[in-house]
Amino acid sequence: MACQRSQDAANFVFEGKKIIGVALNYMCAVNARKVPVPKEPIVFLKPTTSYIREGSPIVLPKVFTKVAYEVELGVIIGSRCKNVSREQAMQHVGGYCLALDLTAQCNLTAARATGGSWTLGKGFDTSTPVSRLIPLDAVNDPHALPLWLKVNGEVQQSGCTADLVFKVPDIIAYVSKYMTLEPNDLILTGTPHGSDAFKAGDVIECGLADLATMKFNVCDE
Amino acid sequence: MACQRSQDAANFVFEGKKIIGVALNYMCAVNARKVPVPKEPIVFLKPTTSYIREGSPIVLPKVFTKVAYEVELGVIIGSRCKNVSREQAMQHVGGYCLALDLTAQCNLTAARATGGSWTLGKGFDTSTPVSRLIPLDAVNDPHALPLWLKVNGEVQQSGCTADLVFKVPDIIAYVSKYMTLEPNDLILTGTPHGSDAFKAGDVIECGLADLATMKFNVCDE
Ligand SMILES: [Mg+2]
Ligand SMILES: [Mg+2]
Ligand SMILES: [Mg+2]
Repeated sequence: MACQRSQDAANFVFEGKKIIGVALNYMCAVNARKVPVPKEPIVFLKPTTSYIREGSPIVLPKVFTKVAYEVELGVIIGSRCKNVSREQAMQHVGGYCLALDLTAQCNLTAARATGGSWTLGKGFDTSTPVSRLIPLDAVNDPHALPLWLKVNGEVQQSGCTADLVFKVPDIIAYVSKYMTLEPNDLILTGTPHGSDAFKAGDVIECGLADLATMKFNVCDE
Repeated sequence: MACQRSQDAANFVFEGKKIIGVALNYMCAVNARKVPVPKEPIVFLKPTTSYIREGSPIVLPKVFTKVAYEVELGVIIGSRCKNVSREQAMQHVGGYCLALDLTAQCNLTAARATGGSWTLGKGFDTSTPVSRLIPLDAVNDPHALPLWLKVNGEVQQSGCTADLVFKVPDIIAYVSKYMTLEPNDLILTGTPHGSDAFKAGDVIECGLADLATMKFNVCDE
């Protein structure tokens, strides 16, 4: 059954309709920013037009001045669920991926200051680079995975999914109280401390345990 | 060509991947709320799991205490575009629909006060009731359409798309600077003054010119 679910989720980039992000979900990031630990997952949406795969560049939109990297564990939904319990939630996971949740901080900071929407700062084209599907049976424990990101060869982020504030089943259970999760939906689980701006000409590499690595060139629109 | 585009867009509820909303986009609403006229469209995302059609009830989530109706003109994208000009934008419209952009004000007001995300307050299941496709050739001018909403037979909203702050081509051009628009994406253009809370047991009816009407029962989750 795990095998079947992984096969079905292999085309999540083309078949998926939803990308759900969780903000401020690593204790190291909460501590570094000296903010209170969130009481509930902080959930946002990205459009699937933001997906890219290795071989395509990250394109920084003309309209933005500051875009930051965020390396994340992605969780791909394998079967439909609504109002699922934490205990049942993992049965609806179809696989994993390595992902970047690129964020236009220039836009998002301004939006947050005025109670505005996060959509443009999170949703621009090429803002969600992802690896191939990592099948379920390759991952013993999704909460024990080191992940890292380098810019031009220098390590900028280094964390472990053990440090997640809300674990994978917590997020699935919470989101499914509001909206149905469908096969091929992607959940971006948040990023460890160290997210920062990057620029055209940079090379971004990242990795998740021994499961996946990715490398992207960055250019201006 | 208009005919072909309309045919292709007929299944937008099932084929579409993006729902883009625009907030505070009627002059009557701006004036009633005594806020400045937005300088740019205020854009947010809803997931396609929020769609319902006539015959299904609006289900008020247990987690919310105040959900409001918003009657809107929906614009369905007919062909892919990115960085399209206002002058070229209308060529990418595949049709129209009548829509409701149901909004959990309890959640959204709290989110906005703290710079939070609009996603849960806008994205819950059944929050986007829509009519069938209104074909292009049925609409002479999308900016001259009266639209109305009744709760239990009493008119609560009555406006005209002539009152839009950002017109359809303005919105398409603006959004496409950030993200690619794809066939079957839906744009919710905003709601006239009069949006307010409703409750289980209410019957919501709405209409757009002589082009479409819809009627929905409301129940608690
Ligand atoms: Mg993130
Ligand atoms: Mg009223
Ligand atoms: Mg609205």
